[in-house]
Amino acid sequence: MSTYLLLIKCPDAKGLVFKITGILFRHGVNVISNHEFVDAENDYFFMRTAFSGEVPETLVDELRAVLPENSDIRLSREGKRAVVIFATKEPHCLGDLLLRHAYDELPATIQAVVANHPDLEPLARQFGIPFHLVSHAGRERAEHEAEILRVLAGYSPEFLVLAKYMRTLTPQFLAHFPSRIINIHHSFLPAFQGARPYQQAFERGVKIIGASAHIVTEELDTGPIIAQGLLPVDHTHTASDMAQAGRDIEKFVLAKALKLVLEERVFLHRNRTIIFE
Amino acid sequence: MSTYLLLIKCPDAKGLVFKITGILFRHGVNVISNHEFVDAENDYFFMRTAFSGEVPETLVDELRAVLPENSDIRLSREGKRAVVIFATKEPHCLGDLLLRHAYDELPATIQAVVANHPDLEPLARQFGIPFHLVSHAGRERAEHEAEILRVLAGYSPEFLVLAKYMRTLTPQFLAHFPSRIINIHHSFLPAFQGARPYQQAFERGVKIIGASAHIVTEELDTGPIIAQGLLPVDHTHTASDMAQAGRDIEKFVLAKALKLVLEERVFLHRNRTIIFE
Amino acid sequence: MSTYLLLIKCPDAKGLVFKITGILFRHGVNVISNHEFVDAENDYFFMRTAFSGEVPETLVDELRAVLPENSDIRLSREGKRAVVIFATKEPHCLGDLLLRHAYDELPATIQAVVANHPDLEPLARQFGIPFHLVSHAGRERAEHEAEILRVLAGYSPEFLVLAKYMRTLTPQFLAHFPSRIINIHHSFLPAFQGARPYQQAFERGVKIIGASAHIVTEELDTGPIIAQGLLPVDHTHTASDMAQAGRDIEKFVLAKALKLVLEERVFLHRNRTIIFE
Amino acid sequence: MSTYLLLIKCPDAKGLVFKITGILFRHGVNVISNHEFVDAENDYFFMRTAFSGEVPETLVDELRAVLPENSDIRLSREGKRAVVIFATKEPHCLGDLLLRHAYDELPATIQAVVANHPDLEPLARQFGIPFHLVSHAGRERAEHEAEILRVLAGYSPEFLVLAKYMRTLTPQFLAHFPSRIINIHHSFLPAFQGARPYQQAFERGVKIIGASAHIVTEELDTGPIIAQGLLPVDHTHTASDMAQAGRDIEKFVLAKALKLVLEERVFLHRNRTIIFE
Repeated sequence: MSTYLLLIKCPDAKGLVFKITGILFRHGVNVISNHEFVDAENDYFFMRTAFSGEVPETLVDELRAVLPENSDIRLSREGKRAVVIFATKEPHCLGDLLLRHAYDELPATIQAVVANHPDLEPLARQFGIPFHLVSHAGRERAEHEAEILRVLAGYSPEFLVLAKYMRTLTPQFLAHFPSRIINIHHSFLPAFQGARPYQQAFERGVKIIGASAHIVTEELDTGPIIAQGLLPVDHTHTASDMAQAGRDIEKFVLAKALKLVLEERVFLHRNRTIIFE
Repeated sequence: MSTYLLLIKCPDAKGLVFKITGILFRHGVNVISNHEFVDAENDYFFMRTAFSGEVPETLVDELRAVLPENSDIRLSREGKRAVVIFATKEPHCLGDLLLRHAYDELPATIQAVVANHPDLEPLARQFGIPFHLVSHAGRERAEHEAEILRVLAGYSPEFLVLAKYMRTLTPQFLAHFPSRIINIHHSFLPAFQGARPYQQAFERGVKIIGASAHIVTEELDTGPIIAQGLLPVDHTHTASDMAQAGRDIEKFVLAKALKLVLEERVFLHRNRTIIFE
Repeated sequence: MSTYLLLIKCPDAKGLVFKITGILFRHGVNVISNHEFVDAENDYFFMRTAFSGEVPETLVDELRAVLPENSDIRLSREGKRAVVIFATKEPHCLGDLLLRHAYDELPATIQAVVANHPDLEPLARQFGIPFHLVSHAGRERAEHEAEILRVLAGYSPEFLVLAKYMRTLTPQFLAHFPSRIINIHHSFLPAFQGARPYQQAFERGVKIIGASAHIVTEELDTGPIIAQGLLPVDHTHTASDMAQAGRDIEKFVLAKALKLVLEERVFLHRNRTIIFE
Repeated sequence: MSTYLLLIKCPDAKGLVFKITGILFRHGVNVISNHEFVDAENDYFFMRTAFSGEVPETLVDELRAVLPENSDIRLSREGKRAVVIFATKEPHCLGDLLLRHAYDELPATIQAVVANHPDLEPLARQFGIPFHLVSHAGRERAEHEAEILRVLAGYSPEFLVLAKYMRTLTPQFLAHFPSRIINIHHSFLPAFQGARPYQQAFERGVKIIGASAHIVTEELDTGPIIAQGLLPVDHTHTASDMAQAGRDIEKFVLAKALKLVLEERVFLHRNRTIIFE
């Protein structure tokens, strides 16, 4: 007997929980967990229900009939999600994900690694994961992305993970995976613009190094935040030590965020995430 | 129009959310927030609903009619809870609570401070809070607690807060405030038995100082945990510096735990808390 | 027998520690603690020595004779430092400092509170601390600051603490207390420009609320950082809850930073702090 | 020109820094960093100096001549330390160390993995590291350890790392690597005795999961602590989720502690560590 995940997002209205749970109750399913949240500021309703049992084909239609128009209803089977990882040269995030995948810490099937540099091919291969080099050298951005899409066509990933992939993606590319691309990047208090952020952090004497994982939207590095983490540093840390702290917290935060996303715990609404842990 | 908090705790069964929300829906109340949790290991169901609207006097009876026997149903108005604080000599937790109370950071009315030493009387009085010295010197425990109960009879506290109150309470006393007494104490990794815990922590070279707030049960310092917090220390910290770190984290954790309790977000089940933040 | 704090900051050179400790050794003082740091990037040397014993009047001159030109040498007695606190309307930082002062958790003598609004007068007075209202209403900035300086002339503070003082200070004012003014402000990942930062943080769905304490320099809110701290938040936190988390972490970080500064543990160099904890 | 690390540990006395730095100054070495600490409670002195330059063969003797009897003086070249990792079945710590080793994040040469179960052989081999299965099945403890020592004789490790090695080691074995074996284990607030600690943590409703890395001494799991870390959990975490949090924090803390040890930043004194970060 499968476990199902039902995700509903719609304008708030009276009786939503009653109506939804009523349909589930009449079908005799066994509710395992139930989360709701009402965003009072925006009058929006979010619900995630995990249940086991027999599900009629009509379930989504039955739900749609009692919910407000334009409700977003998503029903899926619990299980591993197909993922392709994008990388460039840095191994820390990719390596951590491959290890977790190998030892079953992530509800994911990593189908392939796509990179614009060859450096990480040995790492992917030692874990038995196909590696695709799609160099951007001498290619227009559209051509490069078209080539990546051809590679992805050989798989059917539900999610893409940018594990220190150092290229921006065009809105045209993003449209193929709406709200289904996860990125990780360093974060500082205060924020630094421009190049060599760890050098800037060192020069400012920051005491905390952070990382943020977010859903990729058209504005680079400013999509809705899924998870954040931090590590303390001090004046004895060189810029290079701070970069090491950055790597340590980046890999932890990316794995945490990815697990939340793969378990379908993350709703996106405007520029915020609602996360049912 | 008041806001109500409905707390339900009962053996798990199919359709509980549907039945409960159905009753609320028929009465036309406006659900503000809804949290459920099923403890799968113990097959127990927990729900907290905040709603506004007109509530019929029969609501709890209507709910009881559709819920399993022995369900625990608690309906209250949202608002400030009456609290009495117990203390001994240390001012850091008491002072922090008095400040938060004075500036409206806590949904509490602090009615009085009860202490077994006179040291903190000026602190309570400068905030305009009645202070009752109930010395334990030369008194049997039962006699001492009887005197405290006489003082409490002049108030009607819903919760007692042990803000570094350095006396244990008997089961007979606890029975007057079942699951309604909050305590704070230091916590270490590893734990230390016996006297002078900060000296022991220093000698062991611990790198983290912690604090735990918990519901007081018959076993001292081991009741269900509401909140925990930690601060890093190192070899340059003397035992006295570690004690200062302990005070800093204790006052933060106690205030956090108390807020959760006052907002009726904390369920107790066996030796665990279920907390709907 | 007094304890002395010797702070030296100078261009790096061979044998500095040897020469400095040689002078101390010949005077037979008892070194309690010794910290050095070489900023390799800037070839700068920092040293803090705490020692007890008899100190000849010529000590600083003897040191200057063996140190590079333009060395910064500071010798002081360990003990409480005189402090004046600036505030506006928010009580959380001021109240926490007054409590710590009252119970001897800070090596400070709080001489007075200066505010541009009357709201916090009762709080200062209940702790027996003089309160000076210096309203900025209808005054030019220079006139307002001149009035504040007249008030300060009645005291002799070594340090000023901006405990949520919501006015910027001019370079002319800062010149009276070079590197001796401490400020606290909220910090976010990512950073937000403009008004209502907690509302912006809420709308962006940040998962961490931070605070930074720094030395005030001419650029507002961007002086060298002394201490930073953070608290986790999530989608269930309203903008108001996030502001509460901000207050909790601000008061903790300000007290921590102030203690470091009062104990003369903080060196300033360019835009960084070197802190010997 | 090599960089040297000089570590000195001795009873405290006047003029130690002066005498030590005098010898270094006369040899014209270039001091890169200098840390001292006096444990006032035990009157003990600790110093770590990193310097570059030509070092005479007599340096340690010259130092010994000016230091108290029984001083512990250790002079070594900065560089990679030879390490053998012990493991059992759990891959998270071993995998993380192998990744960091492969990408040069650790100043270590991992020579081999020794395990009492065959499960992790593929993981070691995919990183090109020799794997030695030394099963304890049907062997006396002394015999098992003798076999391990025979394997180690083929290498010359300076440090052993117990990366979730689930066997205790005898004092006889430890004597071969005094204060040179690092272990990681889970830590809880409060501590739990006995089997299935994550189940116990779940049943107690702990809000924080921790890990401690320590130097192995004769008392299992209670040696001097090098580093500790923590992750928050709540009632929605099953015992299995808590174990995942435990793995995440264990691998981070072990890598952090190992780096400190490999860089010769950790002094051991009685049951404490003095760590010069």
